[in-house]
Formats: sequence, C-alpha cells, structure tokens
Amino acid sequence: MEEFVSREQQVVEEEPEANGHHSSTQSSHRLLNYSDALISIIATVMILPVAHTKVEDNESVQTLLTTKIAVYLMTFLIVTVAWAAHIRLFQVIVRIDDCLALLNLACMMLITFLPYTFSLMATFPENILGILLFCGCVMVIGVIQSIIVLYAFSHPYLLNQQIQSLESRSFYKSHILKVIMRVPLVCFFASVTSLIFFQLVHDTVFNTSVPGPVEESPEVELFYSFLPNEPLSKERVEAFSDGVYAIVATLLILDICEDNVPDPTLVKQHFGGSLVAALKAYGPEYLAYFGSFATVGLLWFAHHSLFLHVTRTTRFMGLLNTFSLAFVGGLPLAYQLTHEFPPNSRNELEAIQISCVIIFFAGIFQLAIFVVALYRQQETLHPYVRYNGQEHIFMLAKLALYPCVALVTFFLTCILSRFSASIFHLMEITVPFAFILLRLLVRLLLSILRYIFCPERISLQRILEEDIEDLNAINTANT
Amino acid sequence: MEEFVSREQQVVEEEPEANGHHSSTQSSHRLLNYSDALISIIATVMILPVAHTKVEDNESVQTLLTTKIAVYLMTFLIVTVAWAAHIRLFQVIVRIDDCLALLNLACMMLITFLPYTFSLMATFPENILGILLFCGCVMVIGVIQSIIVLYAFSHPYLLNQQIQSLESRSFYKSHILKVIMRVPLVCFFASVTSLIFFQLVHDTVFNTSVPGPVEESPEVELFYSFLPNEPLSKERVEAFSDGVYAIVATLLILDICEDNVPDPTLVKQHFGGSLVAALKAYGPEYLAYFGSFATVGLLWFAHHSLFLHVTRTTRFMGLLNTFSLAFVGGLPLAYQLTHEFPPNSRNELEAIQISCVIIFFAGIFQLAIFVVALYRQQETLHPYVRYNGQEHIFMLAKLALYPCVALVTFFLTCILSRFSASIFHLMEITVPFAFILLRLLVRLLLSILRYIFCPERISLQRILEEDIEDLNAINTANT
Repeated sequence: MEEFVSREQQVVEEEPEANGHHSSTQSSHRLLNYSDALISIIATVMILPVAHTKVEDNESVQTLLTTKIAVYLMTFLIVTVAWAAHIRLFQVIVRIDDCLALLNLACMMLITFLPYTFSLMATFPENILGILLFCGCVMVIGVIQSIIVLYAFSHPYLLNQQIQSLESRSFYKSHILKVIMRVPLVCFFASVTSLIFFQLVHDTVFNTSVPGPVEESPEVELFYSFLPNEPLSKERVEAFSDGVYAIVATLLILDICEDNVPDPTLVKQHFGGSLVAALKAYGPEYLAYFGSFATVGLLWFAHHSLFLHVTRTTRFMGLLNTFSLAFVGGLPLAYQLTHEFPPNSRNELEAIQISCVIIFFAGIFQLAIFVVALYRQQETLHPYVRYNGQEHIFMLAKLALYPCVALVTFFLTCILSRFSASIFHLMEITVPFAFILLRLLVRLLLSILRYIFCPERISLQRILEEDIEDLNAINTANT
Repeated sequence: MEEFVSREQQVVEEEPEANGHHSSTQSSHRLLNYSDALISIIATVMILPVAHTKVEDNESVQTLLTTKIAVYLMTFLIVTVAWAAHIRLFQVIVRIDDCLALLNLACMMLITFLPYTFSLMATFPENILGILLFCGCVMVIGVIQSIIVLYAFSHPYLLNQQIQSLESRSFYKSHILKVIMRVPLVCFFASVTSLIFFQLVHDTVFNTSVPGPVEESPEVELFYSFLPNEPLSKERVEAFSDGVYAIVATLLILDICEDNVPDPTLVKQHFGGSLVAALKAYGPEYLAYFGSFATVGLLWFAHHSLFLHVTRTTRFMGLLNTFSLAFVGGLPLAYQLTHEFPPNSRNELEAIQISCVIIFFAGIFQLAIFVVALYRQQETLHPYVRYNGQEHIFMLAKLALYPCVALVTFFLTCILSRFSASIFHLMEITVPFAFILLRLLVRLLLSILRYIFCPERISLQRILEEDIEDLNAINTANT
C-alpha cells in the first residue's frame, strides 16, 4: 500500500507526462528562467538611450538628464510590475505544456515592447498615440494571461498541488481572472477616456506628476489583496537580480567595443601610426569600465551574501530589491558621465556626485532588505545572521560598506572639489580590498570598541593576539 | 545510528557552514548562474558592432560583412572556450566561500574584456599590441584560475565529494594545474615570439587563415584529454543557452528604442505634426522586431523541448549547441539588414537570403544535437523520444521545421526574387501557427503515408475520424 502511494506521488510530482495523454507536460523551471532573463534585460537596457545622450558643456547635467532618468525609472518599474504579475501567475501554474509555452512567449514579446511605447509617451506627451499603444499592449497582455489561466484550469494537472485539491477551484479561477483583468480594464477605460477627453486626461495625468506605473503598482497590489509579507518566489527574485547585475556589468564593455576601437586611418593621421598613443586617449574609459565592473560585481557579491542567508522572500523585500536594482541599472550611465567631461569642470564634479548618490541608494536599499528581514527574523533569516548570531555584525558590515563609502566620498568631493576625480578613483580601488579584509576590519573595530567600553574584562593584548592569528589565517589562505 | 548518519550527511551536503569555522562556505549555484549570464551576454552582444555597420547601397553586403562576421564568430568561440574551462573548473569545486567568489569575479572581468582585445587585433592586424593584450588577458585568467585551484585544494571541504575522498589528491591537483596553465603558457610563448619575430608570426598566423580560437579550441580539448562523450553539466548548458536566446531576442528592441523614437521637431517639419505618419516610416522595423522575436522565441522553444528529453549532455553535444547559438546570435544582424535596403534591391535579396542561411544553420545544429543523442539513446535520451518512442517523430518534426522552412524560403527567393520580401514575411507569420498545429500536421502526414503504403490494413475513414477527434480535442483545449 505504502509503495503504491509513493509510486503515485512520484508520478504526480516528477513525471506527470506518464499519465497517458499528458505526455507533453513539462516542469516550468526553464521557461521561468528564460522569462526572467528576458525581463531583466529589457528592464535594464533602457538606460542606454539615457547614457547615449550627448551633453553639451555649457548645460548642467542634472537638468538635462532629469526627464530621461525619470523615464528610465518608470520603465523599470512598469516592467518590474509586469514581472511580479508573471511570478504570481506561475506560482499557481507549476507545470507547462507546449501550448502554454507558446502563449507565454507571446506575452513576453508584448512585455518587451512596453518600454518603446513608454518612451513614445514621454517624447510626445501631447500625442494620444503613445497612451493608446501602451494601453493596447497592457490589454493584450491581460487577455493572453487570462487565456493562460483558463487553459491551465481546464487542464488541472498543470496547477499547483494545493489548488488542484481545492474544492472551490472555479471560484478561485474567477478570482484570479478578476485580478488579472482589472489592470487591462483600467487601461481600456483610460484609453477610451483619453480618446474622448484627451486634453483633460493630458492635463490631469501628465501635468500633475508621473504617469503610468505609480498609479498602477499600488492598484496591482491592492487588487491582488496580498499582504506585504506575502511570500515571493526567492529563486525567481535571485534569477531576476542576477540578470540585471549581469547586463549592467557588461553594458559598458559593449560601448567600449563599439566606440573605442580606433579607426586605422585616424590612427595614421593623428598619432603617427602609434596604436598605443591612440589607445591612451581612451584611458579614462578603461578605468571607468573596470571601476564599473568592480562596483557592480561587489554589489552583486553583497546581494549574493545577503540572499544566501535569507530563507524566505516577502513582497516587501521584493519591492526594496527592485528599488536597489533600479539604481544599479543607473550605474553605467554614471560611469559614462564620469569620463565624458574635461577634468575639474563643474559637470565632472556633478557626474561624480551623481555616481556616489546612485551607489549610495543601491547599497542602502540592500541594507533595507536586511533590516526588514530582521523584523521577522524567525521566519526570514538563517540563525547565523539573526540578531546576536555569529555572522550578524559581519553581514551588516558587508551591506553597510558601500553606502558608507559612497557617503564619505560624496562629502569629500563637496569639500575638496578640485580632487574629486582622484578621490573617486581611489575609492574604487580601495573598496575591493576592503571587502577582502572586511572580516579582519570588523573584528579589529569590535575589539577596539570592546576595549574602550569594557576594558576590565579583556586585556588589549589578548585581543591583538587574536587578530594577528586571524591575519595569519587569511594570509595562509590566500597563498 | 541511522539517524546519526543521515544527520551527518545532511550537514555535509546541505549545510557545510555548520562545520564550525567554515561558516562562510556556500553552495556555488548562484555564482555559476551569474557567471553564465555574464558570459552569454558578452558572447552575444559582440554582434552589435557588426549590426551597426553602415552599408552603402553600391557595395555588396556579403563582401563588406565577411570580416566583421568572422570576428564575431571568433569572439563567440573564444568566449565559449573560456566558458567551457569555467564549467570544468567548477565541476571540481562545488562549494565556494567569499574569497573564491571575489577571485571568480576578477576572472569574469578579464573574460568580458577579451572581446575588446580581439577586435583590436582584427582592426589592427599589423600591430603587435592587440596580440599582447589578448595574450596578457589569457595569462592573467590562467593565473587566477590556478590560484582558485590552489585555494580550493588547500580547503578540501570546497571540493567535489569524489575528489575529497581521493587518495592521490595532490597528484590530481597538479594534473589540473598543468591543464589550466598550458593555454596561458602557449600564449606567453606566442607573445614572446611575436615580440621577437613579429613579422614572421603575423605572416604565419594572420595570412594563413583564422587566428586564435581555431588554434585554441582543439588544444584545450586535447589537453584536458576528455573524450567527446565526456559529460558536461546540463544545467549550465541550459543556463548559457537561455542567456544567449534572451539577449538576442532583446537586442532589436534595444535598437528600436534608441533610434526609432522620432524627434519631435522632425515630426513637426516633415510629417505636419502627425505622429502616426512618422511612425509609419519605421513600419518595416517593427515587423523585423516581431519577426526576430518570434524566430528566436521559437528556436528557444525547440531547444527547450529537446533538452527536456535529453537526460545527459556530452561535450560533443555542447559543441554543436555552441555552433547553433553562434548562428542564433547572428539573427539580429540578419533582421536589421532585411529592412535597411530599398525594396527589390539586390542587397535586400542578399540580406533575406543571409537570414535564411542563418536560420537554417541555427536549426540544423539543433537537429544535429538530437541525432548525436540518438546514437547513444540509452544514456542520453528519455524513453519517449528514443527511436520508436511515442514522441520520437514529433520531436524530429519540431526540430526539422525551421531548417526545412528556411531551405524552402531560400530557394523560393532564388526563383521568385521579386517577391522575396513578401515570401520571407509570410514565412515568419506562418511558422508560429505551424508550431501550434504541429502535432496535428505530423499525424495527418503519418496517416496519409500509412494510407499510401499500407492501405489494406487501415481504412482512410478511420484515420480521418481519428484526426478529427484530435482536432476537436485541440479546439476544446484552446477555448
């Protein structure tokens, strides 16, 4: 009897294709990976049009880029909202067949087209076409997702085990459909309204402040009626973050490969045929590349260390993660700006300060994820990094390193504005070493604090001996 | 006793950080995902400089692009060779700590820099600097990988269970080190030689045929002395392929977002303020985008279906997969070319034919993977798709669809060259429907064949009834 049950379970869980005619049923794992990769890329590459904006020397960087950056952030949020809806959908549907895979591809195609409609909207705020295209895309995405839901509920073996055994499955189906269709319906009414009262809509929507996503994201959250600590698939949050970090890290090398291979005829004319001299002219850009790659890599490293000890991701943590990623996506822009202006110009200073601000926010939102996780540490964190855990302080130091360094650099560039570029590059070079020696630095700091505040309990000598032992351990480990 | 053993196993397998001082040991899963994403992006985006080449109308597409495409293919192969070395390294090292993660990031940074050095080499074939930079990068990568090996062997808990329990671990270590260091050493001698006898090297290496990778990849294979059916992590092959498909699918929308948002002042001057008229001018580019996305998506779909039924990946299958991906990476270029030339020009015809050739090869190499897998079907394939399995014919049809369609389109465009663009677009539109109805089409074809060759056994009516039942089943499934 027991054998029979376990055999059946195995059939249901691992090989649903063994059930006769369901031979084409598949695990959704790779489909979700591919979707995550697509969405993370499309969310991030939208920084490129911003980064490729040519800035004139007599203009201020800040004023020119504000609109473009706003568009970038909005696009990032819109795409992320679509991604969150996708996660929820495929937390209900856990297996796919060919038909679902093709429907999902159609849905992805429209999601990747959203950024374009949005940039049309931003470039032509007075034209109705952008709004109509955007609403049309959102509506079709909604319709496709509804078809996916209907298809999955008519083939119950595709659903989550929990829902499969639910009595009120049809009630649940109509609930999901309602939730999915509400955003497209809002878009439908918005587009109809905009066709009739275009001037009115334009005045109210665009002249007040930000369009689209800000209106949308709270709605989506309300409609799904999930609490902020509702779980969100940790695997997919990690996959999406990996995609964003990877594409951000490579965006600059892409620009370098395209623009910084000098033209052979130019080299002959201007540099007397000396390739080294020609490449020297691009020096700052290589520095920017390595700096940006190292920063993105280390931010990924901090993110990776954090999520290694997070046992359960909530929707609120996902939101903070999205904010952090939106700033990470701005890094290539910041780095490109740092080497575009003449040394010691006001623009160069501003560009460096923007870089510091971006790094600061990217890091501080990562730290915020940890702080939020600490509030419910019993559910969300590994014992090691809980408050009073043996790795707690170390994790805190890892996550706080970049925000602190960025803040210090920012104020230093304010005071010593003449040396801002050197300070910034020095920061870039020292941070990786700080990460390598972090464990040691933290222990040194702690022992100094311990010595200052409770000197009677531990002698300074013992603390230093401990530290030297650690140093030796690290040295032997590195060689 | 049994409980004790299982507890210990759990500690070793799942929570190696519980072993006292190894608290920072981590599973390498996410590090590998991130590396795969980085390498797949960097391998693929190198098509962009090729795609952005401006082609004059009086030049032939083929002659101009040949060099650039050769550079792209070479870069793709070089990066893939580096990726294969990375897979092998992390099949030995299965756990990481902070130090290994940082070393790996440094290694990744240099790998992403390789394409730039290679395009320098290609642009300045007579200059020694490109070769030196390339060799320098390869050498530093080798040194970092050796450090990774040394570090991992000095902390045996990071290694593969098998190697951990090996008696001759130090022998194995020196074997791996030898294998890893051979390529950098070859590069070192190449650079020294090139410094001394530059003219000679230049003549022999560059004037013979192709540089770098072709010399390298067989060497790497020989040196590792693995057989072609040596297993290669299936997970990582999938992750890498997903990355390539995802970035290829989004490359065109990236171009569209950057270039095809019309300038407001231009719209006012040329189109009398009508945005619709201005966007109509970009019509072919949208068509190209949706066509390219659909093709890439469906090729991914075929790949996904194939690897779902592949149980074990060999090195030879990995190689075929790389070739397939290299052609997939060329798709954005092909699609960009199709809409760049005036209708009915010779260049347009050539561009469309290049597209067909690329699609053909991308598909045929996927088919080749399946054929190779069939040779050792007992080990590498799921019973369903083995020869005589119930899904065998269907899988074959899925994989053969694109090569066949591309071939037919190619010959049609040769004969009816005036209608080449319409034929191509018609092909793009019909293929997705062909995929949806594939199961039906295959059965229809089979039953017709059965009827023709053995009409006495089955009556035509019964076959048709069967087919109509299937049709009904599909229809009810879709509604």
